[in-house]
Amino acid sequence: MKIRIKLNSDVNETEQKVLLAYLDKHKLVYDNQLNLEVPENFDFSELNVFSFIEEIIKPKYPLAGKKQKETIIDIKGLKIGGNNFTIIGGPCSVESESQLLETAKACKEAGAVILRGGAFKPRTSPYAFQGLGIEGLRLLNKVGTSLKMPVISEIPDAEFLNEFIEYCDIIQVGARNMQNFQLLKALGKINKPILLKRGLAATIEEWLFSAEYLLSYGNPNVILCERGIRTFDNTLRNCLDLGAVLAVKELSHLPVFVDPSHGSGHHSYVNGLSRAALAVGADGLLIEVHNNPDCALSDGIQSLKPEKFGQLIRDLKKIAPLIDKKIS
Amino acid sequence: MKIRIKLNSDVNETEQKVLLAYLDKHKLVYDNQLNLEVPENFDFSELNVFSFIEEIIKPKYPLAGKKQKETIIDIKGLKIGGNNFTIIGGPCSVESESQLLETAKACKEAGAVILRGGAFKPRTSPYAFQGLGIEGLRLLNKVGTSLKMPVISEIPDAEFLNEFIEYCDIIQVGARNMQNFQLLKALGKINKPILLKRGLAATIEEWLFSAEYLLSYGNPNVILCERGIRTFDNTLRNCLDLGAVLAVKELSHLPVFVDPSHGSGHHSYVNGLSRAALAVGADGLLIEVHNNPDCALSDGIQSLKPEKFGQLIRDLKKIAPLIDKKIS
Amino acid sequence: MKIRIKLNSDVNETEQKVLLAYLDKHKLVYDNQLNLEVPENFDFSELNVFSFIEEIIKPKYPLAGKKQKETIIDIKGLKIGGNNFTIIGGPCSVESESQLLETAKACKEAGAVILRGGAFKPRTSPYAFQGLGIEGLRLLNKVGTSLKMPVISEIPDAEFLNEFIEYCDIIQVGARNMQNFQLLKALGKINKPILLKRGLAATIEEWLFSAEYLLSYGNPNVILCERGIRTFDNTLRNCLDLGAVLAVKELSHLPVFVDPSHGSGHHSYVNGLSRAALAVGADGLLIEVHNNPDCALSDGIQSLKPEKFGQLIRDLKKIAPLIDKKIS
Amino acid sequence: MKIRIKLNSDVNETEQKVLLAYLDKHKLVYDNQLNLEVPENFDFSELNVFSFIEEIIKPKYPLAGKKQKETIIDIKGLKIGGNNFTIIGGPCSVESESQLLETAKACKEAGAVILRGGAFKPRTSPYAFQGLGIEGLRLLNKVGTSLKMPVISEIPDAEFLNEFIEYCDIIQVGARNMQNFQLLKALGKINKPILLKRGLAATIEEWLFSAEYLLSYGNPNVILCERGIRTFDNTLRNCLDLGAVLAVKELSHLPVFVDPSHGSGHHSYVNGLSRAALAVGADGLLIEVHNNPDCALSDGIQSLKPEKFGQLIRDLKKIAPLIDKKIS
Repeated sequence: MKIRIKLNSDVNETEQKVLLAYLDKHKLVYDNQLNLEVPENFDFSELNVFSFIEEIIKPKYPLAGKKQKETIIDIKGLKIGGNNFTIIGGPCSVESESQLLETAKACKEAGAVILRGGAFKPRTSPYAFQGLGIEGLRLLNKVGTSLKMPVISEIPDAEFLNEFIEYCDIIQVGARNMQNFQLLKALGKINKPILLKRGLAATIEEWLFSAEYLLSYGNPNVILCERGIRTFDNTLRNCLDLGAVLAVKELSHLPVFVDPSHGSGHHSYVNGLSRAALAVGADGLLIEVHNNPDCALSDGIQSLKPEKFGQLIRDLKKIAPLIDKKIS
Repeated sequence: MKIRIKLNSDVNETEQKVLLAYLDKHKLVYDNQLNLEVPENFDFSELNVFSFIEEIIKPKYPLAGKKQKETIIDIKGLKIGGNNFTIIGGPCSVESESQLLETAKACKEAGAVILRGGAFKPRTSPYAFQGLGIEGLRLLNKVGTSLKMPVISEIPDAEFLNEFIEYCDIIQVGARNMQNFQLLKALGKINKPILLKRGLAATIEEWLFSAEYLLSYGNPNVILCERGIRTFDNTLRNCLDLGAVLAVKELSHLPVFVDPSHGSGHHSYVNGLSRAALAVGADGLLIEVHNNPDCALSDGIQSLKPEKFGQLIRDLKKIAPLIDKKIS
Repeated sequence: MKIRIKLNSDVNETEQKVLLAYLDKHKLVYDNQLNLEVPENFDFSELNVFSFIEEIIKPKYPLAGKKQKETIIDIKGLKIGGNNFTIIGGPCSVESESQLLETAKACKEAGAVILRGGAFKPRTSPYAFQGLGIEGLRLLNKVGTSLKMPVISEIPDAEFLNEFIEYCDIIQVGARNMQNFQLLKALGKINKPILLKRGLAATIEEWLFSAEYLLSYGNPNVILCERGIRTFDNTLRNCLDLGAVLAVKELSHLPVFVDPSHGSGHHSYVNGLSRAALAVGADGLLIEVHNNPDCALSDGIQSLKPEKFGQLIRDLKKIAPLIDKKIS
Repeated sequence: MKIRIKLNSDVNETEQKVLLAYLDKHKLVYDNQLNLEVPENFDFSELNVFSFIEEIIKPKYPLAGKKQKETIIDIKGLKIGGNNFTIIGGPCSVESESQLLETAKACKEAGAVILRGGAFKPRTSPYAFQGLGIEGLRLLNKVGTSLKMPVISEIPDAEFLNEFIEYCDIIQVGARNMQNFQLLKALGKINKPILLKRGLAATIEEWLFSAEYLLSYGNPNVILCERGIRTFDNTLRNCLDLGAVLAVKELSHLPVFVDPSHGSGHHSYVNGLSRAALAVGADGLLIEVHNNPDCALSDGIQSLKPEKFGQLIRDLKKIAPLIDKKIS
């Protein structure tokens, strides 16, 4: 972690020497502005003895904040981040093995490399379809394995952590759980990649602090995902905030995905917003695809049919090279 | 639950007779518009056999929605709702036994009847004070018991359900957890009163549906709490939405509290907003009080000193009778 | 205006003496921190010659910002501000002489002291009723004069300034015009009291700067009016921001009114929000009243019937003395 | 205008015949659902005599709403809309002839085809630089003429209509004036192209209704411009709503531009958001460019240097053909 030690204005020479000796002893290299790098586990309380230190200036997000090198995450050999542009497709909910298998095959054929599928659905109303639960996870894993596609699903609570570790290759934290700090702490203690959606009214600062929870508890494999925010307008379901993607790319080294399905709420906007997400510099897309959207148990209206999804990926493959991205 | 059975326009007389016979057999009383009341556990799937039924029109919030009688909740003899106006006070966080005891005594003397205190603090940054955890709950229970004040604290996750049942008289669901559906389901299965804060960008509809989760899983003891929403302005920490209090009182039979401390973010606004909350028709207040706000480990700036809290309650006691409320 | 002159850290004694001589010559009284009061027309550019001045720190809102004394505005002997609580009532739109006269009489009898009536209606759609224009103003003036009630109406554009000066006692700037700077400049050059509504997504800072336009162009008679802001929820038409009333009372000496009719969009919420506005410390109310709301050409749904308006004022008169307000 | 005449359910045959005779007499062609096309100046009040008409269903936006053909606007031979992608560049404010000329030449060389420059600046504070006024317009016209670039500037009030008609090729309505209905009516009565910015908290419906004002008063030459909306986050100045661009393209036949400079508030985001705007399907860009951003009298931080602007246009020219757009 890069820090700067700021001294009181009336510090004297002897005091300075004592501090420098302390730093030298701990093999910390500093410049004449007292900028230095300390290890992550550095014990700051030791510095309390130096009463002439006015402040220790630390980075806002010590771990999620920008570093030299962009994070690249490896999922069974598939690289996420850097100049890779990764497309995740699949149904909103796992409804049955046949529905999932049919959709997954179509997604793979269209060019998706990761399969999504909801098993636990967060629903505003208690009377709406809540998902197949663990059985949905098992089906997702089975279909993903058979098609050699890594799979991602949204975890509702740390209670199911073991099942998600067993069945998923990426664990999604949904928008409503972005500040479920108990869940973040639990996910921070494992090593499985996490896709962290932005909350529907979360500031960029809050989003990065939630990533910082995951990182500071030990999990370096974090993917951010912008999925639209809530505004005063309801012509579209949400307002996809592509400026936030740029802001986060500037503030952090983590890969940033975009979900144009929730980001608009209607399939007819998915193609345009996907192109825009690629053009703005995102690292991947999370798209809802359904073999029969009219019969979907959830979010049918925002799901692409497989043929539209195929067309979208062909469109993206033309644009990608122009902005130095590679669609695997 | 009140429902209405809407028939296809081309239904014939025989079909109608079959339906009425079915309703009669189940002792369901209907009028000639086919409005009827069914028990909560009624099995709607049986009606699927009648292909001439176009739609069964149910209330939006079958349980949280308006009924004849307002819900009154009993907490160790203390009544919440109806014409009672209940004041909850205490520190943002439990910091130590002496801090809590001193603040609690001052709150009781000022006129508060329930003691609040955070043990698990939801914090944006992983590096901020996270609360004393279970130890904080134990202290809260100990102090509350010694002063004969019921206590309330915010639960972070269903993992700690047993401890909260043991140590608390009311369990608070925080704004960030309003749509933590796993938590809501778990809390719905117990009988302990729940105070459900509105999420910081939750619509009134989402808030009532979250209450509906608690009620439909079996817990009738739900108190709603408006605590300010997020808007484009940041002069104040949040925008207290007192119109929402009125809206919820019209849509639901549940008691509605107001948290003017989070609703403004500054102690200097708490008195004015508390008076407004009473005047608008709320059923109680949740206020942060600290014996030494400048040294508080969290939210000091929005905490009232005990003497200001006492003055506030005296002010409220003058206004309450004019709007038919009784401050216990 | 109170300013502070901040000098460079390396300023020498001679330089300081030159500055002090300049200030003495202009009869400006300063303390040893160089805080001083300068006349409103002070020419700051003269200070540019002193290269050792680092910054001249001015108040953010030199005129609208807090001073010792609250502004009290006199409208034909009626006092606005201070401990006065003033109720304005009347129809959304002037529709006809008989409609206006009937409603105005009922408002006066109920206890309103100022009559409102829209002549130019800002309507989202070009196909909606746009108001009677100048003819509406004339009717308003006629009815107000006959009942000895001062009148207020919303000005759409500086083009009609003369007519508004002639016919109105207070000129209203509507929410959509809060940042119509040409209009503000024109209204700043007259002396007629202005009621400045907060824009529907205006920050408190922007609102006070719009007041500053009026004041800095020369008009000291400014009343602010909170009328609800736009948020993500649409259960109510707007979200009445009573915290903003408190914030503005703290930042400024100007009177602040509340419009609970637009602030909620429904007559059933007007009583509760009016009581809350009084309780929070506002200086008056602007309420839509219609003798026959169901037939109103605009905003009928949010208009009170006269008898409800009378009941409201009786309710307010009971609460007012408890918070040191006097309803005239 | 396409309308549908909906009859009462108990209409009889004779009544229907009377209506059809009326329609035939007026040479209105209808189908058996009574869908028909009426001329824009059709007098609907005549239909009031037919008491058996329940409702006349009109399109929401009769003129701004979708028609077969997209509007293409001709500005001195330059085509806007359709498959043209048009880039407008220039300084936030006209500051001096030399500043404007230098920036304009650089913009033209970089590839901009229209020159922007503010003469009347809407500023939150009355103490901020307000623009050069009419003199700024004259300079803009002079420089534009000398470089053969059409020019655009923002009109503050209908008071200056003649000067804007004389000096500008496109008249901009700023975000704060989107619902200045007097101004819209005045601009509707001329023929000069209007660029109508979306208000910073305007719904898509309100935006299209403001366009409808312009069109219904007679001006068919309307360009819409998305410039970012106000949300709860302030990491960026505004949130550019590219989903709204798609929505408006679906609802209307009018060209839609994007302003990534105000849409982000920082020059470092302009390139990414411009690419996204092109990719999403916008018809052009409005970009702030300054030859010396650090010295700009307004909005320097969001202004591109000419070389970055040149690079941006080169980037866009590579992407444009892939989405069937032509950069002139």
